Amino acid sequence: MSTRRIHVIGIGAGSPEHVTAEAAAALAEVDVFLVADKGETKDELVALRRSICERFVPADHPYEVVAVPDPQRGPDAARDGAQYAKGVADWHAARTEAYVRVVEGLPPEAVVGFLVWGDPAFYDSTIRVVDAIGERLATTVRVIPGISAFQALAAAHGVVLHRVGEPVHITTGRRLVDDWTRAGEAGLDLGTVVVMLDGHLRCRELVATAPATTIHWGAYVGMPQQELRSGRLDEVIDEVVELRARLREEHGWVMDVYALTPARP
Amino acid sequence: MSTRRIHVIGIGAGSPEHVTAEAAAALAEVDVFLVADKGETKDELVALRRSICERFVPADHPYEVVAVPDPQRGPDAARDGAQYAKGVADWHAARTEAYVRVVEGLPPEAVVGFLVWGDPAFYDSTIRVVDAIGERLATTVRVIPGISAFQALAAAHGVVLHRVGEPVHITTGRRLVDDWTRAGEAGLDLGTVVVMLDGHLRCRELVATAPATTIHWGAYVGMPQQELRSGRLDEVIDEVVELRARLREEHGWVMDVYALTPARP
Repeated sequence: MSTRRIHVIGIGAGSPEHVTAEAAAALAEVDVFLVADKGETKDELVALRRSICERFVPADHPYEVVAVPDPQRGPDAARDGAQYAKGVADWHAARTEAYVRVVEGLPPEAVVGFLVWGDPAFYDSTIRVVDAIGERLATTVRVIPGISAFQALAAAHGVVLHRVGEPVHITTGRRLVDDWTRAGEAGLDLGTVVVMLDGHLRCRELVATAPATTIHWGAYVGMPQQELRSGRLDEVIDEVVELRARLREEHGWVMDVYALTPARP
Repeated sequence: MSTRRIHVIGIGAGSPEHVTAEAAAALAEVDVFLVADKGETKDELVALRRSICERFVPADHPYEVVAVPDPQRGPDAARDGAQYAKGVADWHAARTEAYVRVVEGLPPEAVVGFLVWGDPAFYDSTIRVVDAIGERLATTVRVIPGISAFQALAAAHGVVLHRVGEPVHITTGRRLVDDWTRAGEAGLDLGTVVVMLDGHLRCRELVATAPATTIHWGAYVGMPQQELRSGRLDEVIDEVVELRARLREEHGWVMDVYALTPARP
């Protein structure tokens, strides 16, 4: 019985310069790239992905790019834990079904590739989708790590993410305020808090209680349009909010990430 | 006035395959690599670093490797926060002095390079040393992110590090038990806890209270001698402890990392 080879390839946070030797070699083996078609046109991101393939796939290796229509995701209104998780799970199930149909239609020997922005281990559903495909079809999966946005952020600012010997807590915009508040109440030092997937810059809600927090923020990190800001949260947050809105307007999309280091008590 | 160019280059967790396009380009610019001489001989690591230079530096670009003697670090007896931080700070100051002397002796136009295992943003002191050099000499520093051990670990196991929408907490062996216990008492979900720099597998101390925790462990991740284990903490920890000791004996050194995902309440 044939097993289908699937490569899940972390291609870094936006710069082709982030691509590793391992990722380049994996890219060169892929016959069919599957891309989620989200019905929106982030033209710059599509162009960037194409340029990565053009740079790292040898000219004599033909490959195909197949767009897989992404099922509609329910409204994001339900933001509490259980409801939110269920919404995501339903959406993944529909997506799995769409991918299984596409993969079944490919020649069994075709190497299938998924390109993942950043690192597949962080806030990306590709591995979960591929695992779900693996419950329906025989697969051999290989995952290649990539530079995540928070690493590009730290490098661009030239900083170590944590103070000596302290932790780094990576969380989402949705959880930030709750995690931060509870940890403070418990006297637990989360260390530097990295916030991903935060379209609302929820750190604004911490200004009143933790104004002296240091923020390192970046948008399009590692890309030509990179913007960086850092400083005391209360001093730079207004500028960051304004800048983020303006960038989003200008480019039609924005990818940003930030890290918060609490002031010493 | 001349400014000295310094590249801090993350070269990944041990596999030359982790080297990014950006790191390769930076390696090719370096004239003098500075390497901390710790008076021990981790021959395999030295050989690995050499093989990375040989693979990614063009044959016609000459470079030098200068070993900088590492000052003695005080005994690690003082493990509580303040004392520990002071010990590390003193050691960094002595090290800075040693590097400043070496850099001052180089031609001003020489590009200086530091190779960093993993990512310079995590549990590595190079950026702090380079910042300290920058307080004494005019420097232009560039930091290049690299694949960290926890990313190689997740990829090798083929897993996303966190459950859907949940956080990742990256900490040290020294802090693990305290962070874990306090978070539990506060009802704070740290998400998956990644443990770095843990020569003592402190997770053993969690077996009694959290036996159903899932552990993903790996040693020499991404390297030919890679070993992986995963499962319920109480079921695999004895094997991991025994294996780690044996590997350390065999190779003379061991680099390992693990992630703990608490059981659902």
